[in-house]
Amino acid sequence: MKKIKTPDYQIFLGDAAEALDKWLKKNQYASHFALIDEQAYRLHKKRIDDWCKKHKIKALQISVNEKLKSIRTCEKIWTWLMAEGADRHSLLLNIGGGIIGDMGGFAAATYKRGMAFIQMPTTLLAQVDASIGGKLAVNFKSIKNNVGVFRNPETIIIDTAFLKTLSDRELTSGFAEVIKHALIVDKKLWKKLNKIENLRAVNWDKLLPQAVAVKNEIVKIDPYEKKERKSLNFGHTIGHALESIFMKTKNPLLHGEAIAVGMICEAFLSHESGFISKNELTAITAFISRFYTKRKITTSQIKKVSQLVKHDKKNKGKKVNYTFLRGIGDFKINQSATTPSLEGSIYYYLNC
Amino acid sequence: MKKIKTPDYQIFLGDAAEALDKWLKKNQYASHFALIDEQAYRLHKKRIDDWCKKHKIKALQISVNEKLKSIRTCEKIWTWLMAEGADRHSLLLNIGGGIIGDMGGFAAATYKRGMAFIQMPTTLLAQVDASIGGKLAVNFKSIKNNVGVFRNPETIIIDTAFLKTLSDRELTSGFAEVIKHALIVDKKLWKKLNKIENLRAVNWDKLLPQAVAVKNEIVKIDPYEKKERKSLNFGHTIGHALESIFMKTKNPLLHGEAIAVGMICEAFLSHESGFISKNELTAITAFISRFYTKRKITTSQIKKVSQLVKHDKKNKGKKVNYTFLRGIGDFKINQSATTPSLEGSIYYYLNC
Repeated sequence: MKKIKTPDYQIFLGDAAEALDKWLKKNQYASHFALIDEQAYRLHKKRIDDWCKKHKIKALQISVNEKLKSIRTCEKIWTWLMAEGADRHSLLLNIGGGIIGDMGGFAAATYKRGMAFIQMPTTLLAQVDASIGGKLAVNFKSIKNNVGVFRNPETIIIDTAFLKTLSDRELTSGFAEVIKHALIVDKKLWKKLNKIENLRAVNWDKLLPQAVAVKNEIVKIDPYEKKERKSLNFGHTIGHALESIFMKTKNPLLHGEAIAVGMICEAFLSHESGFISKNELTAITAFISRFYTKRKITTSQIKKVSQLVKHDKKNKGKKVNYTFLRGIGDFKINQSATTPSLEGSIYYYLNC
Repeated sequence: MKKIKTPDYQIFLGDAAEALDKWLKKNQYASHFALIDEQAYRLHKKRIDDWCKKHKIKALQISVNEKLKSIRTCEKIWTWLMAEGADRHSLLLNIGGGIIGDMGGFAAATYKRGMAFIQMPTTLLAQVDASIGGKLAVNFKSIKNNVGVFRNPETIIIDTAFLKTLSDRELTSGFAEVIKHALIVDKKLWKKLNKIENLRAVNWDKLLPQAVAVKNEIVKIDPYEKKERKSLNFGHTIGHALESIFMKTKNPLLHGEAIAVGMICEAFLSHESGFISKNELTAITAFISRFYTKRKITTSQIKKVSQLVKHDKKNKGKKVNYTFLRGIGDFKINQSATTPSLEGSIYYYLNC
């Protein structure tokens, strides 16, 4: 069992049952609840049932997607907590991917002005990124994470056993955030990643602590995203817009898939602004393309992207805010790009 | 212009225009928005229009009541903020009573994970109590303030000019919280209050700072209601339940009116538990009854109260949590009462 300390809480890396035992022995709550992703539950029924029995956890399994990451679903969660007698001294354990963590965390943070919650991320994306840093939210009016709060969990329990049952697509999606962590601050990690050909062959117990540490260090310095934390938004301005647009189609993009495209586009903008060389852009584009199949983006969807980025949470006034790369392993926050440049970056992606 | 400092923000007591000028000169926001109680706007149109013009404030007037203090109304506020281009660097000014402050504050605290907000309370209740201490919430499933967060405003601007246009009923309602502040910690204030016969004759500019200071001191010591802040819940366990029940009738109780009844009931329970003398109970009952006409409470409503208190946010596990008085100007938190005692206290109120 590895432990990573943060100023407000600690992260356990290892066997979830052991971590949960330790935590619930040391900390008393009025009662225990769990919000569980239906799919994670189906795949890990035996283990989860054991925990629920041992620690008297009342569980709600829900199926989730970006459309269901909503205030409506929060209302269902609040109603369930009320019906089961949860109070502000109770604990909610969120077992699932980023959506479960973001939404369950937001529901807990607002239920009776805040009950305790633990994040137990089951996807690579949530383990390496979403669960860390206290960002909680739901989507609202087609804008991703439009309503939410910052609040840290009691603890985070990361168990890589969950990764074994992830689909290839889910695993690849999560890998985008690992790539991002390397690109913005960790050139050594970038070199390590470049050796990876097959994600199934990766030793996650070894790689994850390094990628988690990157995120953890950044949010420690700047929890409320005034400065350094904006680095984590690399690939996310365009990525989020694409994710929102594809959410309404028959073939939605997973979060990491959208960020992968966003990173290629924003690496292009970084190059255009003179921050990275042509060689660096080519290396980034080639590495990302190794894992992600190209998605078609229509001209009208490109127009929509330039509309949607105007609603990005990072913006100040009317200026769209980007984070660019300044070399591999370095970033530059508070950058901007014209609409033609933005559209050009998507054409670059489509033709790369 | 008086100023009261708190660890996180300051409270201005005086002319609102002057306070607003000072604040917006010193602090830069991407854009300014105001959520304004329709009634307060009608009564103070000229002044408010002047502020909006001078500081380029986009305003939304809404009518409010406890039924409209909801997630649905928050959705309207979020949608309006989006349509008007508010971002997380914008400011929302909440001009109105406790409902506007609680709900506007919650909408701001969750919009794009939190934009800045200022409270400008226009009712006595909001000026002396609701606006101070960072409690934000909306009602959910008939439970008062069931969904919310703790977050402090940028500043609070208290201008007693608003009190002149309040109805007698509103003014009297707010006075309940002044009485509560005296009862729980300030015997001197209690003696001063006892001289009041007519609320219209009170010099609020003189009395308010004292009552505001009580609340401010308590939330300073214990912002998240772990201990001392629970003192402020005196009268509120039964009061909130009554407020919820009457919310569904043709004659809803105003918050302070419900708390006035709650304080008489909980003073009775304090006496029954041996914490205050018969004389003290009589004095409290007589003083409160001087300002509030008796409300009829039916037997079935009394039964409902004992059901509803089980959902109170202060509860831990299955035990209903009360704050009792321990003499006038002193309190005792984490108390309990049996259902017969609770019902007995309401019969005491009905027959006092």
